[in-house]
Amino acid sequence: MVLPSVAWQRLGDYLRETQLLGSIQSTLYWDQNTRMPQAGALWRGEQLALLARELHSRQSCNYFSCLLDEAKEELSRETKSGAFSSGESLQRSINLKLLDQDIQRQKRLDARLVSDLAQAKAEGYSCWHQAKDKNDFLLFAPALRKLIDLRKEQASQLKEPRSCWETLAQPFEPDVTFSRLEELFAPLRKRLPDLIDDVRAWGFRTGMKSWDLEPSIQKNLCGQLLLSWGRDDSISCVASSPHPFSITLGPSDFRLTTRIVPGQPLSCFFATAHEWGHSLYEQGLPSESHQWFAWPLGHATSMGVHESQSLFWENRVARSEAFSERWWRIFEEAGAPVRSTQDLWRLMNPLTPGLNRVEADELSYGLHIMIRTDLEIALLEKGLDVEAIPDEWNRRYFELLGLTPKSDSEGCLQDVHWSEGLFGYFPSYLLGHLISAQLSEAMNLDMKVEGFNSEDPLEERIALGEEDQLLSWLRSNVHHHGRSVNAECLVEKVTGRKLSSQPFLAYLEKKLDRLSSCS
Amino acid sequence: MVLPSVAWQRLGDYLRETQLLGSIQSTLYWDQNTRMPQAGALWRGEQLALLARELHSRQSCNYFSCLLDEAKEELSRETKSGAFSSGESLQRSINLKLLDQDIQRQKRLDARLVSDLAQAKAEGYSCWHQAKDKNDFLLFAPALRKLIDLRKEQASQLKEPRSCWETLAQPFEPDVTFSRLEELFAPLRKRLPDLIDDVRAWGFRTGMKSWDLEPSIQKNLCGQLLLSWGRDDSISCVASSPHPFSITLGPSDFRLTTRIVPGQPLSCFFATAHEWGHSLYEQGLPSESHQWFAWPLGHATSMGVHESQSLFWENRVARSEAFSERWWRIFEEAGAPVRSTQDLWRLMNPLTPGLNRVEADELSYGLHIMIRTDLEIALLEKGLDVEAIPDEWNRRYFELLGLTPKSDSEGCLQDVHWSEGLFGYFPSYLLGHLISAQLSEAMNLDMKVEGFNSEDPLEERIALGEEDQLLSWLRSNVHHHGRSVNAECLVEKVTGRKLSSQPFLAYLEKKLDRLSSCS
Repeated sequence: MVLPSVAWQRLGDYLRETQLLGSIQSTLYWDQNTRMPQAGALWRGEQLALLARELHSRQSCNYFSCLLDEAKEELSRETKSGAFSSGESLQRSINLKLLDQDIQRQKRLDARLVSDLAQAKAEGYSCWHQAKDKNDFLLFAPALRKLIDLRKEQASQLKEPRSCWETLAQPFEPDVTFSRLEELFAPLRKRLPDLIDDVRAWGFRTGMKSWDLEPSIQKNLCGQLLLSWGRDDSISCVASSPHPFSITLGPSDFRLTTRIVPGQPLSCFFATAHEWGHSLYEQGLPSESHQWFAWPLGHATSMGVHESQSLFWENRVARSEAFSERWWRIFEEAGAPVRSTQDLWRLMNPLTPGLNRVEADELSYGLHIMIRTDLEIALLEKGLDVEAIPDEWNRRYFELLGLTPKSDSEGCLQDVHWSEGLFGYFPSYLLGHLISAQLSEAMNLDMKVEGFNSEDPLEERIALGEEDQLLSWLRSNVHHHGRSVNAECLVEKVTGRKLSSQPFLAYLEKKLDRLSSCS
Repeated sequence: MVLPSVAWQRLGDYLRETQLLGSIQSTLYWDQNTRMPQAGALWRGEQLALLARELHSRQSCNYFSCLLDEAKEELSRETKSGAFSSGESLQRSINLKLLDQDIQRQKRLDARLVSDLAQAKAEGYSCWHQAKDKNDFLLFAPALRKLIDLRKEQASQLKEPRSCWETLAQPFEPDVTFSRLEELFAPLRKRLPDLIDDVRAWGFRTGMKSWDLEPSIQKNLCGQLLLSWGRDDSISCVASSPHPFSITLGPSDFRLTTRIVPGQPLSCFFATAHEWGHSLYEQGLPSESHQWFAWPLGHATSMGVHESQSLFWENRVARSEAFSERWWRIFEEAGAPVRSTQDLWRLMNPLTPGLNRVEADELSYGLHIMIRTDLEIALLEKGLDVEAIPDEWNRRYFELLGLTPKSDSEGCLQDVHWSEGLFGYFPSYLLGHLISAQLSEAMNLDMKVEGFNSEDPLEERIALGEEDQLLSWLRSNVHHHGRSVNAECLVEKVTGRKLSSQPFLAYLEKKLDRLSSCS
């Protein structure tokens, strides 16, 4: 006999309406970045603010708390009476636990702070934009100082048993701690600079000629890539935007954007691969029904896991030797200066450290992140003054990468994150590299068992054009968990080991070893 | 001294929030038609339904009534105390009168009917789609019958001193009456079939070869057209959709769509001209500030006036001889089979009656509308049974146009309107032709006074590429009125005469006369 679960249903209806509003907000954001004429910004800002107010009030109101309490009581009653299997009962209780966590967090914040933060973000973004344009950090400093103060206040209102920075990092990376990050990043901090020095010693390609591809040809290559990776155009679409992103607008509505960068003929291709990886994760989340789409278990568990999926498709697949083997003729025909697998593979892996995080490759990316993470923690917890940022930034870049920015615009003003008060976000990018590497090892092991006997079955699949097999492994091992486990638990569940930086370093060393022999 | 007008301000804030929600709804609609992948439809439907419920409740609730009542009292108090100029006072009172009318209409409808109608529309649309695909009118008949019953109930709940059909036509054409339409349309019903016969007698172009233009070339021509008509891409954008439309998403955010029809190389060009005309009207509405955007006076007065603006740019300008004179070389270079003004002008004015309303030209368009209007009135007020539609439709087409549809799909199932319960909408299309013609006459007169001494100063301006002068006439004579006057008053105000079909017939006869001499 199926019990009615009235309270559960009522809560579900409420969540669904919240999710409808949230996805409307996302649709406005998508349009703003892909189509809206510039002068539409003011009115769009008001539309978004209206929805933000409505969403915050729905997510923190007493009515929502009551619905949740009733659902908890009902679940415990119905579980005792044996209405559900233990699996179903567990899933329901995890959903309720996560909702409880979310609502507690929302309720602890006072409305004034929420509104002050929203305004400070808007101001911060605008000051940052000006400061970057004019290469004048001091134009941004006061707004940044204000954002830091407000974020500190937010952390203190949240009253979590964590440090300030850790509290602010929770929404991106649940349960993350500073000491755990140190443990994960320390080996990278030590090893990556050495590897960069090794590559420098190769003395490759200083005289490489610059080249480019027509936008229409680049778009065509991206289309071929997504086709070969099984894109279904009845549930997804691709557009252009200044900054590539991926966004889910409904349970069967997945969007991604890419962009053409003049003089960087592979940028659009890799951005497409990257964003498609994000989208594949979202497409693989448990969403058997519209209803499920609105519950916590239907959502991504962390930004680190999200990034692991985009990086998997961008780096592990599209920048692999096997991929170049299959694609070099296509690139040659498109007009790229390549005449072999090795040519394309080297082009796809320049391994030259630079000052820009977004353009960094696998080898130096981690160092960009560590610099930011250290600075954030110093700003929020160790009393570092905002005006000291430019010097501290430059000192660390010289120490770790051997480079010094010519200006703050290409140095400490390059990223948008702090201007919107996003502290605690950066580490997720690097965690993504680590998670991707460790999951890939597990995937390789599983495939060996299945009868692929080469050293690297993953590459073998790619060489055969069987990327669908990689996806199906990710679907059944990674995606379907949703928010039921945090990033570290997920990795341990899938790989049988605690997350570590070792698989990432091992992968990098092996790759460098192979690349060093392509000349 | 400026009085605070507290109630006025409060009402304005409320309207502004309603308008924000309404424009969010429009943004979702825009995305649905230009970008959304097909499988996103279900969730999008739920988003739209959520907003529709919220909007209806905002527009009919007691809180809104109270705000309005307070503003009325305040206005009368402040007017007596001489706080405003008489112009300002009049504008405010018109705004309040229109709001009162709107809210009364919303309040009279019970919520059950609103929700039943929403559902019946969705069902109707889906049945109509199937019926059209399968050429089986009976698949649509039951849903249509239900829609008619619900609309009759709606009219009776609205309790207006008008017939059922007239009541339903009000939102599209305020104050329209059946007898007035008869008066306006009777001369057309009599004269148009004769004109069609005349053209048939010319025996033109039966052997015209079919031709086409590459989509990219068509897009390029459309881009040139809008550039020459002053499009500002910081406030507008153009996309593709299955059915062209124009929509306003914010006080500085105007969108339009067009489409390429294989085998019809001019279709995209004229659709662009047409939708741009709609958009120019919206761009010219009084919206000196964001605030104003939300008040009734900031909105279009009727669909007929709206259509008069789109038809002006499509027919009066782009299908004019002067326009062909300026554009034929551009079309020739693009690959069109033209070697003179006359060649292009004839191509742009085929004058061949067909079975399809959307593809009909100025000569036969009116007859398509009269057939639909007569049938609607028969269905709603004269007891015509739904199942009799196909026979009645075909009989009238044969009578007026001398043609018989080969199937219901190309006959009575061609239009979407009835499937969504839109009765009373069709006449606006034809009113648009009449209004456009009468306004054009007035424009011509004004320009003669200004020193253009030719018989047709409007054509002279077009020949000079000075369409901006036509726009500026429309801006200062037509657009800025917003909803302050209805369509008929607007025409009388601008032209000094009551609206009639005479200018349209005179224009057509003159055009046919000129065209008959191009061979």
